[in-house]
This record gives sequence, structure tokens and C-alpha cells, in this order.
Amino acid sequence: MSRARSDVRRLPEKQVRDRAVLEALLDAALVAHVAVVDGSQPYVVPLAFAREGDRLLVHGSTASRAFRALATGAPTCATVTVVDGLVVARSQFESSMRYRSAMILGSFAALHNGDKERGLQVLAARLLPGLEGARPPSAKELRATTVLELVIEEWSLKVSDGHAEDDASDLDRPVWAGVVPLQHTWGAPEPAPDLAPGLEVPPAVASWPEGRA
Amino acid sequence: MSRARSDVRRLPEKQVRDRAVLEALLDAALVAHVAVVDGSQPYVVPLAFAREGDRLLVHGSTASRAFRALATGAPTCATVTVVDGLVVARSQFESSMRYRSAMILGSFAALHNGDKERGLQVLAARLLPGLEGARPPSAKELRATTVLELVIEEWSLKVSDGHAEDDASDLDRPVWAGVVPLQHTWGAPEPAPDLAPGLEVPPAVASWPEGRA
Repeated sequence: MSRARSDVRRLPEKQVRDRAVLEALLDAALVAHVAVVDGSQPYVVPLAFAREGDRLLVHGSTASRAFRALATGAPTCATVTVVDGLVVARSQFESSMRYRSAMILGSFAALHNGDKERGLQVLAARLLPGLEGARPPSAKELRATTVLELVIEEWSLKVSDGHAEDDASDLDRPVWAGVVPLQHTWGAPEPAPDLAPGLEVPPAVASWPEGRA
Repeated sequence: MSRARSDVRRLPEKQVRDRAVLEALLDAALVAHVAVVDGSQPYVVPLAFAREGDRLLVHGSTASRAFRALATGAPTCATVTVVDGLVVARSQFESSMRYRSAMILGSFAALHNGDKERGLQVLAARLLPGLEGARPPSAKELRATTVLELVIEEWSLKVSDGHAEDDASDLDRPVWAGVVPLQHTWGAPEPAPDLAPGLEVPPAVASWPEGRA
């Protein structure tokens, strides 16, 4: 069987090929860590992103070195990770984490004109769902913004969602083993100091899904 | 003034040069996203890490391609990001996130013998603080494990912890603005299915600091 470069080789039993699980992770996470190479020096840049169908969308300043480099279509990797807990084993060697991590290989391409404006609306709707009242970008703001898309075609996904698998010889060690979940929840909204009087927190915020991270 | 390649150029007002703030972020975060370049293809690999003084420690399998590549001392970048909330502005353009993100440039080096064993103890103590009862690695497990360190020397840190700075002309727009914090908290521990009877959750778990992510 041929192996793709996106295949999981370490801990292959944690590889998940179900695209629905990938999409659920991409819809929960807020930030992708994206590779930008400059000569022999790689950089890893955290970028807010949104999934739109089979694409990952990111936006940034047209003046950003990272965005200019990514817009050239250089090979990149966008990795999206959510830590779901710590796995406490009876041995240090078997202790680990619960996590979901996706790696997407490919190249970004810049969106233009109507596609770019649509991309920004998708980003706004995904990152701040239900808050339609914010002013859309002006022509000047649009000119200052780059929107890039990455097709989700070559990807791998690792999910660790179980318990430690201690050696049988460690099972009678008198120490606790289990999982301590790490939860990502919304706190109480803090109004802006310059908020006009009489404006309440939008009801949509109260229905934002938990688990975004 | 000369600029270092690790200097923040976009949104320089968010650059923080206080090493204590950097260290607090590194001590809160559980995962670094690390660049590994293979030919023209960069990869971004999520790695559990621990800070020990002025070093970042990571551990993995000696069979891991990423660890073998990093152990050669190739130039890399380790980026550590925690998302602290969503910033809701009166314009889409000014909407953003609260976050802390550190970028560390340099090269990993492998630890050996006593340094490697000490590194693993630091990782265990930092990732699962207070749980000293787990069995330390056997000679075989040690041979199967690579421990790498990265000196925290060339780094940059961006912190966004405020509110949106909307244009004056947007301030009377009748929409809410503020911050919705994203909190990272421990859930109720789940005992392993094969846990021996009578073992309670260690008291140390109850005192783990919140905000790890």
C-alpha cells in the first residue's frame, strides 16, 4: 500500500479518516498554525480561520509578510489542534493528552473582488456567529485586507480520546489513573468601555457553542 | 534601529518584551506548534512541551520523522498560542481575538543520558504537576524516547488583551461591542476503566491551575 506524505506514521491507530470528524474539529477551533518558509528559516504563524465547505479561509493585512509569502502559493501546512484533556497513566511513559489535531498540506491562493468580500462574510459569520450588525468592510478596509483560501484536499487527522494503555505489570501500582478533561467555555461578556448606553449583549452570544478553542 | 527577524512587524503595539509575560504563557500552554521542513514542504507538528528555565523541552518517539529531523539541529520555529477570547467590534474590520502568542526561533538539540532523564522528569512534573507516583521510564522506554531542548533566546511575543478600537464614526452604531472571554478549565476527572478499586483522584489535581490550554 502506498503511503501519502500526509499519512500518520506515528501512532497510526490514532489516525481518523472520517471527514466529518475533521470538519467538526475545524469548526470548533479558532486558530490554525500555518507554516511560512523564508529561505532556510521556517516560521509558524497563528491565524484565525474559518472553514467554508472544502476550504480553509484566513484573512490578514496586505502589509503582512506572512500573508504576502502565503499568497505566492508556496507549499504550506496548516495545523489545527485542540487539547481535550490530560491522560494520567500509572507510568510516565504512557501518560499523554487527549487531543484532536489536523494537518492540511497545500498552497493558499488569494481571493479577489466578490470572492474576497464573500470570504470575509464567511469569516465574520463563523468567528462571531449571529452578530450580523457589525459594519461590513469599507472599500479602504477591503484594500488593506488579504483573504486566502486553502483547499482541504491533502490532510491527516489524529484523535486521542481514550484512556492510558498501561502495561499489565503497572496495573497494580497504587496510583490513580484516568483523564482530566480540559474544557473550553465562554465567560461572561465584558462590554466595551465606550459602549453606548442601553445596548445589551446580543442573544446570539448566549447560544454560541461551547468547546471552541 | 535594527530589526531582528523575530521582531513583530504587524501590529507592533501588541509586541511585549517582558520575559515574565513570555514565561507565564509558556507555563500555561500545553502544546507548541513546531516547524519541520522536508525539502520544499514545511510541516507544523503539535508537541506537548515544558519550559525549564530558559529552555523549551519536548519529547517523542525515536522513530518519529519529526523528532529525527528536529534532532539534526535544523532551523525551526516553535509557536505557542492561547486564545483568551473574541473581541466584538462595531465593524467587522476591527473585530478580532484576545490572544497571547509566542514565537521562538532556533534549533533543537537532543539531550542524552542523565540530561535526558532529567528532562523527562521536568516534562512529567510540568504536564502532570503533583503526580509523582507514576512509574519512571524503564531503560527500554528511555531508549525509545527522544528528548529535545530549544534555548529560548530569539523570541517574540504578541499579546492582545484589550477591547476593539472602533473608528469614532462607528461608535454610535447600535450594536453591542465587547469581549467574550474564552476560558480553559479542568472538568471532572474520569477514572480509567481498569483503575484498581479504592484509588481516589489525587489531591494535586484539584489544585492544578486553571487557564492551561
